Formats: sequence, C-alpha cells, structure tokens
Amino acid sequence: MATSELGEFERIRRFFAPLTGPGGMRLLDDAALVDCPAGRRLVVTTDAIVAGVHFLPGDPPDRVAQKLLRVNVSDLAAMGARPRHYLLTTALPSEFGTDWLAAFARGLEADQRHFGMDLLGGDSVATPGPAVLSLTAIGDVAVGAEIRRGGACPGDRVWVSGTIGDAWLGLAVLRGAYPELAPAHRASLIARYQVPDPRTGLGPRLAGVAHAMIDVSDGLLADLGHVCEVSRVGAVVHADAVPLSPAARAIVEADPSLLPRLCAGGDDYELLFAAPPTASETIRALSASLGLPTTAIGTIEAGAGVRLLGRDGRPVALGDTGYRHF
Amino acid sequence: MATSELGEFERIRRFFAPLTGPGGMRLLDDAALVDCPAGRRLVVTTDAIVAGVHFLPGDPPDRVAQKLLRVNVSDLAAMGARPRHYLLTTALPSEFGTDWLAAFARGLEADQRHFGMDLLGGDSVATPGPAVLSLTAIGDVAVGAEIRRGGACPGDRVWVSGTIGDAWLGLAVLRGAYPELAPAHRASLIARYQVPDPRTGLGPRLAGVAHAMIDVSDGLLADLGHVCEVSRVGAVVHADAVPLSPAARAIVEADPSLLPRLCAGGDDYELLFAAPPTASETIRALSASLGLPTTAIGTIEAGAGVRLLGRDGRPVALGDTGYRHF
Repeated sequence: MATSELGEFERIRRFFAPLTGPGGMRLLDDAALVDCPAGRRLVVTTDAIVAGVHFLPGDPPDRVAQKLLRVNVSDLAAMGARPRHYLLTTALPSEFGTDWLAAFARGLEADQRHFGMDLLGGDSVATPGPAVLSLTAIGDVAVGAEIRRGGACPGDRVWVSGTIGDAWLGLAVLRGAYPELAPAHRASLIARYQVPDPRTGLGPRLAGVAHAMIDVSDGLLADLGHVCEVSRVGAVVHADAVPLSPAARAIVEADPSLLPRLCAGGDDYELLFAAPPTASETIRALSASLGLPTTAIGTIEAGAGVRLLGRDGRPVALGDTGYRHF
Repeated sequence: MATSELGEFERIRRFFAPLTGPGGMRLLDDAALVDCPAGRRLVVTTDAIVAGVHFLPGDPPDRVAQKLLRVNVSDLAAMGARPRHYLLTTALPSEFGTDWLAAFARGLEADQRHFGMDLLGGDSVATPGPAVLSLTAIGDVAVGAEIRRGGACPGDRVWVSGTIGDAWLGLAVLRGAYPELAPAHRASLIARYQVPDPRTGLGPRLAGVAHAMIDVSDGLLADLGHVCEVSRVGAVVHADAVPLSPAARAIVEADPSLLPRLCAGGDDYELLFAAPPTASETIRALSASLGLPTTAIGTIEAGAGVRLLGRDGRPVALGDTGYRHF
C-alpha cells in the first residue's frame, strides 16, 4: 500500500520512527506504552484535517503538519493539560510523494520539540481521494486541575487570549481579499491561519482560576455558545472589547461592519474562559508574566445564548456571520 | 460541515454521545480524561480504513464499524493488553447519510459492549473523496506484563491461534471466486473477512508465557517476519501445520498450491507468538480453557528471515505469495 516511491515500511522507518520516544518504541510494536505519572490524569483528543477542506493541497507540508498537531495541542491547553504524546494517521493519495512526506515530518519534528511531545504510533494508508490527516494528542493534568466547559457562573467575566479574527482574515487574504493591505499585515494574517499558536503556557496556569474554558476553533461566538450550553448560562460580549491585531484593526477601520464577522470566524485557537471578577488581578498578572495579552470581553449571565453588543449597547445582528445558536 | 441531513453537532449528539463513558463526558468538552489504574500502563494504537481500499462502500455499516474497532482491539490483544476506550474520526462524503451513520453507531455500540470499551472523543469532518475512518484504541496492561515483538529466542516454538487464510479467502469469495463452495463455507469466510475476532481472551493470559507476540494483519509470514526482524532471529514454518478452517481446507484440498498463498494472506487477526518449548503444556491448557485452538507451526532459529517448508521438508517458493522479506 505504498503511496510514494518508497514502500510503506521504509517510509515509516525513515520519516516517522525517528520521531518516537521510549513509549513509541520506534514504531516496531503493535501498540505503544504510556505511563501516567502519579497524581495526574491523561487527557486525550483527536482532530482530522482534509485537503481542500481544512488545508490547501499546495500548502507547505511542514505547515500542514504543524497545523494538525497544534489544533490538537490547543484542545489539551483548553483543558488545562500539558501536551506529551501523539499518534498520527495519514491517508494519502499517490501524488503526495517522498518529498512531501519528508517536509511534513520536518514540520512535526520542529513542533514536537517545541511542545515537548513525542510520537507514539500511527497508521499510513493509501487513498484514491484527497489527503486525510488525523492526529490523536495525549496530555496530562494534575487530578482535579482539569478545566472543563461546564463551570461558568452568572457574574463571571469572559476573557480571551491574544487576538480574534486573524485566521479568518488570513484565509480571506489567501483567497485574494484585501489586496491593498500592507505586505507585513498580509503575512501575519496568513501565518495565523496556517500555523496557530496554541496557548500551552496559559492553559495549565488557569487551573483554580478559570471556571470554564474552551479554545476558539469554531469561532468566538459559537465557542462561547458551547460553554454557555454546557454551563446552562448565557453571555454578553461587547464587540468593541474584542481584541484585534494591528492587521485586523486596519481592515476593520476601513470596514467596521466586518467586526461581527470576525467574532464569528473560526480557527483562532485562542483560549476563551470564564472567571469570577475576583480573579481579574491574577489573570492580568499571569498575562503579564507570559507576555500574552488577555482581554475581558463580556460577562456570563443567567439565561441562555450569546448576545453581541455594539458600541451603542444594542445587539448586533448576527444573521450574516455564520453564527448560530445551538 | 454537515455530511448528511443532520448538522454535525446534532449527529454527534444523537449517534456518538450515547457511546461515551464518564471520561468522554458526552463529547461536551475539548478533550477526554483517562485515569490509569495503579500498577498498570496504558497501551495505545491507531488504525485507519478507507472505502474502496479496506472495505467496500456498500458493506453493511455496522460491520464496517466492527472491523474498524476490532483491528485496533487486536493490536491491544497482541500486546497482552485489555481494551478500555477509543476515539473515532470519520471523514465522510455527503452520500453517507444519517441512515449509514445510525447503522455504523449501532455496530460500535454492540462491539464496545462486547469488549468492555467506551468512546472518549472524536472528530467528524466532510471529505469530497472516499470515506476514511480512523480509530485510536486505548487499553491497559499490568506493568511488565506487556508482550512485545522483540523477545523471540532461537529454539522457541511458533504458535498461532485459530485458523489462517479465511479472511483472504473471504475477500476472494466476495469478489466472485469459489462459486462451487458450500454456502455455509462461503458465509463463514466472508464473516471472517468482514468481522474479525480479536483474541482478547488469549492475549493478556500469555503474559509470562510468550516471549514475543504480534497479530496477523499483514499475513502470517510477513508478520512472523516482523517478529524475527525486531528479535534479530529467523524462523521456519511447516506449511502442513498451519491451521485451516473447514472452509479453507475444502478449498486447499481442491488446489494444494493455494496453501502458501493463505500463509501470506492478511487480515486474519489471529495471535502469532513465540514461546519456549517448556511453555507448551501451559499453552495447550490455556487454549483448552478458552475453547480457542492454538497450533505450533514452526520454530525460531538463529539467523534471519522466514522459511516456509512443504511436506517434503523443502522450502516452498514464496515468489507468488506477496510475501517479501523486510
């Protein structure tokens, strides 16, 4: 079932075996071994990306690998967990040859070093269709320190790390939008789309601080909606408070009607969390120590659903933003 | 990204959330929690199947689900581990609608009850290509009781559970071969191809008995080759000793030249293991207590590579079997 010039076994041996740690045993066994340190629990998540849907077949393979790993690492961070291991499944068409795989493996290698992870195992199959890449990430968290979606309480402040909307704009730029934007802004938006920066420094340090947390993948409003649904509360977000990068700000200043759309766009992989007002100073100090901005953008309230309020305090119509209430 | 009449969230809620256990939290969080019992290690493996490659798009969806789960469970059994949890990724084209998914979920439900597993998490994406299904299985094993591939020693006997070649013949029957075969034989071969029976009862009980173990997925000879390569030994297999089902025996009696081909065919999901001669009585007693035949088919020897010997004691040519030495 070779998908390239090399046979499956040789490709695994050459590109993936070097990425394993002790538990992955150089991919020479039926399965891998994972020890869980005393007092900790394992945290597992899985996400897949499809060529033509979640990435473009012509995207740089190392960036595709990094995006695949990072969207999973972001889920671990959103639970307050630290990343440790991953398993990888590649279903590749024959035109993804050895060069593509070599670059893909280089992207994994750089990122697993960055995040302190190793490869445990995987599968490599051929497909006559588009490439489908699936990754399972394993992290760990101190027992009781996991941060779930269901703990938001009325009166909590809603916080978000970093900036919102860049990935959505980055995809738009790749598709030809905003030709008038400064080249540095264009590059920064594209990078945010192609290689998200999961907040592994912040997530685990919010244990005991945040009542509920999620990473922004479906979009700020949709993901806050997920938190509200599980927590059985509602939320209000002030559009003007939503943090924007200089590139996004330049675009919104030219077209203010885009702001609600950015609040609905996905793929930011920032952390969105609810914390009691008494935690605000702790969060600001943590944010400063990490050099990662965090911004209070709204409030949890009794009820259900998410309302986005404009500068005038009136609800912003979300009909055209792609956001829907679950 | 709905792949059917229902939206993604509704499909997950309806079909997959009911399959979760406590750690999967009804798929309402970013990731799942896994506790590892004291004195045990977790064992993880992942395998993917592609429509048109590993199953046929028209195959019954519940059987597809069972095959996907079982090929992974077989890897756990081959490490001596017991199955506990799984994560599932589906990349489905739009023609796989709600009915397909409902039947697929029913297959999972029946099997996870059978094997004592629960769903931890997953991802559900749309693809314009053929369905790609990927599953990560998690089991556990007492520390030190894991059985790896690398421990086979010269003088060990080579054993295999159940019967060999049925799945390969089952696929041939599905493709129209052996029209003269008795209907009951045809049905039993097809069932062996579509729904393997991983040896979860036997695997963990071979801890301290088997020196090395693997499950037969690539084919008896290829998989024995994997054991030999990692153990740095060779092996000899007596073709006449290889256990055949009544259906396979009927076919081989009509065409004896098929026997080597069955030894190279894959997808048996039997356990293939090496154990010292002193363990033979223990293995026979275990086999009897489980009602699962196990058969000594050869010997581990110094050197490298796998030799298949015919009734006359001379090597059988493997050029046309698909087996190659790694």
